[in-house]
Amino acid sequence: MKLYGYYRSSTSYRVRIALNLKELDYRQQPVNLLQGEHREGPYRQLNPQGLVPALETDEGEQLTQSLAICEYLEERYPEPSLLPANAVDRARVRAIVGLLAIEIHPLNNLRVLKYLTGELGINEETKLGWYRHWIAEGFDALEAMLAGDPRTGRYCHGDQPGLADACLVPQVYNAERFGCDLESYPTIRRIHAACNELPAFARAHPDAQPDAG
Amino acid sequence: MKLYGYYRSSTSYRVRIALNLKELDYRQQPVNLLQGEHREGPYRQLNPQGLVPALETDEGEQLTQSLAICEYLEERYPEPSLLPANAVDRARVRAIVGLLAIEIHPLNNLRVLKYLTGELGINEETKLGWYRHWIAEGFDALEAMLAGDPRTGRYCHGDQPGLADACLVPQVYNAERFGCDLESYPTIRRIHAACNELPAFARAHPDAQPDAG
Repeated sequence: MKLYGYYRSSTSYRVRIALNLKELDYRQQPVNLLQGEHREGPYRQLNPQGLVPALETDEGEQLTQSLAICEYLEERYPEPSLLPANAVDRARVRAIVGLLAIEIHPLNNLRVLKYLTGELGINEETKLGWYRHWIAEGFDALEAMLAGDPRTGRYCHGDQPGLADACLVPQVYNAERFGCDLESYPTIRRIHAACNELPAFARAHPDAQPDAG
Repeated sequence: MKLYGYYRSSTSYRVRIALNLKELDYRQQPVNLLQGEHREGPYRQLNPQGLVPALETDEGEQLTQSLAICEYLEERYPEPSLLPANAVDRARVRAIVGLLAIEIHPLNNLRVLKYLTGELGINEETKLGWYRHWIAEGFDALEAMLAGDPRTGRYCHGDQPGLADACLVPQVYNAERFGCDLESYPTIRRIHAACNELPAFARAHPDAQPDAG
C-alpha cells in the first residue's frame, strides 16, 4: 500500500497508527502541505479535495478521508481489530472518534487557521485563542466521557489500543504544539502516555517520518 | 428508541433519515438549541458534550455523535443497508460522508458561527462569507467526486439511497438556508431532488418535525 500524507498532518498520523497497529506494510509518499503540493496537478487529480491523506491499496484503488481509510483497513484486515466486538461498544469508540475528528480537528486544521489570519485578518493571539477554545471544549467533554465510564481502560476503550486512541494521540500532539494547557485532563494524558509506549504509535510520530522538517 | 434532537440541526436530520430509511420506530425528544437546553442539567448529564443528537436504544443505552449512531444502526439493523457490500465501495461512501460531515459541517454549525460573531466580533456579511466559503470548497470537491465516478447513480452511490445521501441532503438544506449559490453543482442538486422524492427523506425534513418553529 502507498500512503500519501504529511508528517505533521494529524489525519495522516491517525492512518499511520492504524496501519502500524494492524502491522501492515506501506510506503509513504510525502505531500508537502506548506508548499501547496496538495493543491497541484498530480495529487489533485488523485484527490479532488486536495487534502491528505490518501491511501493507494495493493489493488490500486485510491481511498480518501482518514476515517474512511481506517474503517476500510478494519474491514479488509480485521485482525488485530481496532474496534470492540459489540455494536454498543463500537458506537462508544466511534463517538470518541467523532468528538476528536469531527468536533475538534476540522476547526483547527491548517486551511482554517489560514482563513482566519488571511481573509478574516485576525492576529496570532486571537488565532491561538480560537485553537485553544476548541481543544478545551472538546477535551472537557472527552475527559468526562473517559473518566466517567468503566469501559475506559489502559486505552480509550479497554486494554487494547484502537481507533479512538489513533485519533486521540495526534490531537494531543497538536494541542501540545499549540501550547494548550492539559492539566485538567488526567485521563487523556494517561492514555496518551500509555499509547506512546507502544512501537505502533512511536513509529507513526511526526518526528519519525521521512519528510519531517 | 428515543432520539434527542433539534429540528434544524443537520446532524439530527441525518439520523432521522437513517432511522426512516431503515423503517425503524422512534420517538423524538426535542432539545431546543436556541434556548440552550443542550447545555443544561438533564441533557448535559446524558451527553457531556452538550451536542445533539443522542439516541437512546430500546435497551436503554445512550449513544452520541451522529455518525457513530448511524454506524450503530447499520450494524444492529442491517437491512435495508445504508452502505454497499464491498470494502472499497464502503470506503467511497464513507469518504463522501467525511467530506460532508467532517470537512464542511463542523465549520458551519451554530456554536462556531456564534464564536465568530461573538468572540471574534465579525459582522454578518463576513460570517456569511465564511459559511459560503466552506460550502463552496467542499461542494466543489464533492461535485467532482460524484460526477467523475461511474458508481454514482440516482443517489450518491448506485440506485439505493444510503449514508452518503443522509449526509448530503441536510447539507444542501443548510446551504440553501444560507443563500449559497448551487448553480455549479448539477450532480449534487440532482441527487438532492431524487432523495427528497422519497418519504424517508420527506418525513425527516426539519419543517416536518414536532419542534419546527
